[in-house]
Amino acid sequence: MAKKGKTAINPTREENYPAWYQQIIKAADMAENSDVRGCMVIKPWGYSIWENIQKSLDEMFKETGHVNAYFPLFIPKSFFEKEAEHVEGFAKECAVVTHSRLEDDGKGGLKPAGKLTEELIIRPTSETIIGASFSKWINSYRDLPLLINQWANVVRWELRTRLFLRTTEFLWQEGHTAHETKEEAITETFKILDIYARFAEEFLAIPVIKGKKTESEKFPGAVSTYTFEAMMQDKKALQAGTSHFLGQNFAKASDIKYQGKDGKEEFVWTSSWGVSTRLIGALIMAHADDNGLVLPPKIAPAQIAIIPIYRNDEQQKEVLNFIDKLRNKIKPLRYFENKIRIELDDRDPTGGEKVWHWIKKGIPIRLEIGPRDIQHNSVFMGRRDKNPNEKESVNVDEFINNLTEILDEIQNNIFQKALKFREKNIVKIDDKAEFYKFFTPQNKKNPEIHGGFAFSQWCENPDCEEQIKTDLKVSIRCIPLDSTKEEGKCIYCGNKSNKRVIFAKSY
Amino acid sequence: MAKKGKTAINPTREENYPAWYQQIIKAADMAENSDVRGCMVIKPWGYSIWENIQKSLDEMFKETGHVNAYFPLFIPKSFFEKEAEHVEGFAKECAVVTHSRLEDDGKGGLKPAGKLTEELIIRPTSETIIGASFSKWINSYRDLPLLINQWANVVRWELRTRLFLRTTEFLWQEGHTAHETKEEAITETFKILDIYARFAEEFLAIPVIKGKKTESEKFPGAVSTYTFEAMMQDKKALQAGTSHFLGQNFAKASDIKYQGKDGKEEFVWTSSWGVSTRLIGALIMAHADDNGLVLPPKIAPAQIAIIPIYRNDEQQKEVLNFIDKLRNKIKPLRYFENKIRIELDDRDPTGGEKVWHWIKKGIPIRLEIGPRDIQHNSVFMGRRDKNPNEKESVNVDEFINNLTEILDEIQNNIFQKALKFREKNIVKIDDKAEFYKFFTPQNKKNPEIHGGFAFSQWCENPDCEEQIKTDLKVSIRCIPLDSTKEEGKCIYCGNKSNKRVIFAKSY
Repeated sequence: MAKKGKTAINPTREENYPAWYQQIIKAADMAENSDVRGCMVIKPWGYSIWENIQKSLDEMFKETGHVNAYFPLFIPKSFFEKEAEHVEGFAKECAVVTHSRLEDDGKGGLKPAGKLTEELIIRPTSETIIGASFSKWINSYRDLPLLINQWANVVRWELRTRLFLRTTEFLWQEGHTAHETKEEAITETFKILDIYARFAEEFLAIPVIKGKKTESEKFPGAVSTYTFEAMMQDKKALQAGTSHFLGQNFAKASDIKYQGKDGKEEFVWTSSWGVSTRLIGALIMAHADDNGLVLPPKIAPAQIAIIPIYRNDEQQKEVLNFIDKLRNKIKPLRYFENKIRIELDDRDPTGGEKVWHWIKKGIPIRLEIGPRDIQHNSVFMGRRDKNPNEKESVNVDEFINNLTEILDEIQNNIFQKALKFREKNIVKIDDKAEFYKFFTPQNKKNPEIHGGFAFSQWCENPDCEEQIKTDLKVSIRCIPLDSTKEEGKCIYCGNKSNKRVIFAKSY
Repeated sequence: MAKKGKTAINPTREENYPAWYQQIIKAADMAENSDVRGCMVIKPWGYSIWENIQKSLDEMFKETGHVNAYFPLFIPKSFFEKEAEHVEGFAKECAVVTHSRLEDDGKGGLKPAGKLTEELIIRPTSETIIGASFSKWINSYRDLPLLINQWANVVRWELRTRLFLRTTEFLWQEGHTAHETKEEAITETFKILDIYARFAEEFLAIPVIKGKKTESEKFPGAVSTYTFEAMMQDKKALQAGTSHFLGQNFAKASDIKYQGKDGKEEFVWTSSWGVSTRLIGALIMAHADDNGLVLPPKIAPAQIAIIPIYRNDEQQKEVLNFIDKLRNKIKPLRYFENKIRIELDDRDPTGGEKVWHWIKKGIPIRLEIGPRDIQHNSVFMGRRDKNPNEKESVNVDEFINNLTEILDEIQNNIFQKALKFREKNIVKIDDKAEFYKFFTPQNKKNPEIHGGFAFSQWCENPDCEEQIKTDLKVSIRCIPLDSTKEEGKCIYCGNKSNKRVIFAKSY
């Protein structure tokens, strides 16, 4: 519980950002490390956010003609090897299944047995295994476009893991599409990027920058990778998801051909795209504060927590009865076509403890309701977009009438706050010394703190990109899609350059 | 396409039931075998049925206080070994991860590298890995009951696989709950069994028999396993799902203790329960006929397929315009709180081909709409619960007004048909010779065909159960919960017995 002048979460963002992040997750009871190295357990409060992400994105995919399917968890090693860049990109981090059973090891334990003739890789992504199906499913131009999505778990053997941001196993969706022409595949790549960006801004309340990845940062096997990048509160960038134009690379690797209207056989053009449970990490780092998680109403497991306040059985009956009536009035309301979800917290602890419990969990609206509130036909409301102590008594009917508006206001306030933060911390820099200073920690105690995103010129030479990465651990996050032509000099080498890119430290 | 006297699916159920099953799946484009041994690809039409199953069951779980979470795909070998019966039950069929990367094998290929210090098992079920979390989460009686569900993929290395019915990887939900008392855990086990049975009957339109498994058929590690069994059209039984009372076995294996109100430390009592993509196999085998899949409206990916009929551009415009208006009238309607889903089939083939396409896919209602129908403000309706040639012209307004009723009627007809079939093929048998004859194939060409379910006395001696299994490949599917006490003689040994059980061949 937060005492005067103290915060509910310790350390604060400024004191130790990485530790603060862990504490937010713990205080909101969202996830924890499991006993399996690098794998997390997503607890109900965290998983419910993922369910809401799934539901909203799934609707957007379906509205644009995509359908869901499911492909095997396992990829035969030989499939995986088909696309050279692809296998190189993933070989160092893949879990390998070599046996199909366990048998007595003669020492009271078990040992692997039933050695497989071909090793199986646990999918780190499914281009190659889905490609094998596409190659069977596609024969004619009539079979195109093929617009498939899969919700699944994937495994990438990561050395350093962090809850939600980077875990060995994670949950995601991966879209895989095949098209007749290059143009259609590129259009699809951008259509999805737009859906992602709209979802991030409208649902997660996270402002994002859409852009293209440089050659060195693109997906292994892609022709080009598009990304949407968000600024976290430590001013680092987080790649929230990617959409890849794969050209004919995977079509050639998996032999995906179609007969065109002209009778000629051609390779299809493909795209793939994905977002993952990493989005929950983005959500935390974009909005949470020193008192806990802050959830945009559209994605929150519940929008309202109700805390009954009473001292005896008679009051309890009266209060719970009043709350029942309130819930019935809320029941028919809809917030963006969904029911408004309510948590009634009738546990043992004191009202104050429970209020802080829900602040830490990021619930958008808290209602404390006791006998005095009932007398005035009102509720005592706290909002997560405001200071925890700033509460107000609101007439019940007024509350009901304005509820969806209040939720909208909270959603919008959370977005605007993140947007202002980002705008304040994106700086156009044209001087190399200034650029280096910008990315040099300003606080010895907290080496995470630096300037933010630098919007600077780059000459497209990968050596300049590489040197900056080596010197500062700063990478080109993307070449923004709306970056206009502008004559200038490369921030590193000083040679002629004609566009600005986003440089940042990143997750 | 079915010609006069012919069927759309060949062979028919009677000719070759297993081959018929494969053909139904192929004709409805639901799933196919992948290049990974024993793993299937669930295609969009099949996956959409799974999505509907998930949605309905998930609501039922949440209404009864369960929440979803997600646990690791991997189980450390040592965890897996904790419960002796459990590991014995699954050791012979588990995929083992032994390495964490691939490296150059010096011959142009890749070989496994990064050997793990402890092998990881891909979850065949998650009691042991979830138990590790429960042991951390539960401290006091205040933390109970803990009611968790997980939607996930699991892997069991099966030797003989069949799409949906038995695959190496499959999708399922697994519920895991912990309780203060034995009674509460047993109540939970039955509550879930009731939810499952209600879901099977009300949504899948499959009548089921709830019952207890015998010792030899129960889940490895359970105290008792409850099942709901359905009769397929070859009169074999299919175990559609199970709910296990685990006693304190897994609590002891994973050290899950709580401090009671009296301050004493006790082991919790747990339950686990699951249904899987196998339900789709049940759905097919319970309802499909010799013309293809038959889908109950509540679980169908779409309830209506509209087939426009026209000969020229002008007619096309007129027909599509009419269909647009029809769809707008259907839009506000709800069938069990859900939108009514429509597939408009405006592809190239002829009307007849398209009609058969949708019959094979099992769509509940087909509407053919051409210029003549428009003149009469009517639609030409075919229903999947009726003969394919039995179509009727229905006035549009009448159709709209009666639509939810028609869907209900189809749902109910499909259920009643399955119920009648089952009732006809459950026979009380008290004579051993008759029992043996009942289970002996009556048709040499098709050894799958036999009598059905025998409802016979059993003395509870596992040897009798075992001998019947050896002689006839017939097992005790369950001891029905509603089986009343009845004096009699064991069908095998003739000794005194006091209740009837369900004997059947099974999947």
